[in-house]
Amino acid sequence: MKYSVGQSFQKKFHMSEEKVIKFANITGDKNPVHIDEEYAKNTIFKQRICHGMLVSSCISNVIANDLPGPGTIYLSQTLSFKHPVFLEDVVTVSLEIVKIRQDKKIMTIKTTCENQDNKLLIDGEAVVKFN
Amino acid sequence: MKYSVGQSFQKKFHMSEEKVIKFANITGDKNPVHIDEEYAKNTIFKQRICHGMLVSSCISNVIANDLPGPGTIYLSQTLSFKHPVFLEDVVTVSLEIVKIRQDKKIMTIKTTCENQDNKLLIDGEAVVKFN
Repeated sequence: MKYSVGQSFQKKFHMSEEKVIKFANITGDKNPVHIDEEYAKNTIFKQRICHGMLVSSCISNVIANDLPGPGTIYLSQTLSFKHPVFLEDVVTVSLEIVKIRQDKKIMTIKTTCENQDNKLLIDGEAVVKFN
Repeated sequence: MKYSVGQSFQKKFHMSEEKVIKFANITGDKNPVHIDEEYAKNTIFKQRICHGMLVSSCISNVIANDLPGPGTIYLSQTLSFKHPVFLEDVVTVSLEIVKIRQDKKIMTIKTTCENQDNKLLIDGEAVVKFN
């Protein structure tokens, strides 16, 4: 497939409580800010938040399934967590190709996550090797 | 709790096939390099590899459970994927505090993942807000 700078893809993800609990169990990340409603009430967020790595995994989903797509290998990812992601939020992941090295089949992708209120959640950049 | 620059923590994780399959199901990242043995045989790796974000989530586990520990909030994470992580590998996550801003309760942590052969898998840095 031919890729070009500026090419983009968007996909929405529902951050359900079920996903958060399953993610906590698989990864063993049982930070009370994610799984303990009583604890979370006393934090600055006043409620539970999703694991940053769970939301970041949505970026990985889009890279693997859509842009560039199956077979892509991750070389690097930066993640700047700008705003908390609450349970039941709908996260839109937006990818945009910013640089392509066709000779090495390597591209740089701007990766952005926003919530249902268009609030920036995660800002970052991925470098990947594509097929 | 008092923290100091140079303080470190290490923890091992077994990257089982079960974890990889469950992670693929939760995140929807069904890249064939992770879940399709036949496809993976024809890649440069010759076998399936773990999701970069699954291995990265082990870093999140140690930050949330051990250093700095429960209640910690992620501000940023860089991830440089240096070497593939194969199924059934044992990954050692090493964290080391490199900078502390006590006034803002923010610290910078060097985050390293190595396999059972001491091969560097992921290199990176986390910035977190601690309790």
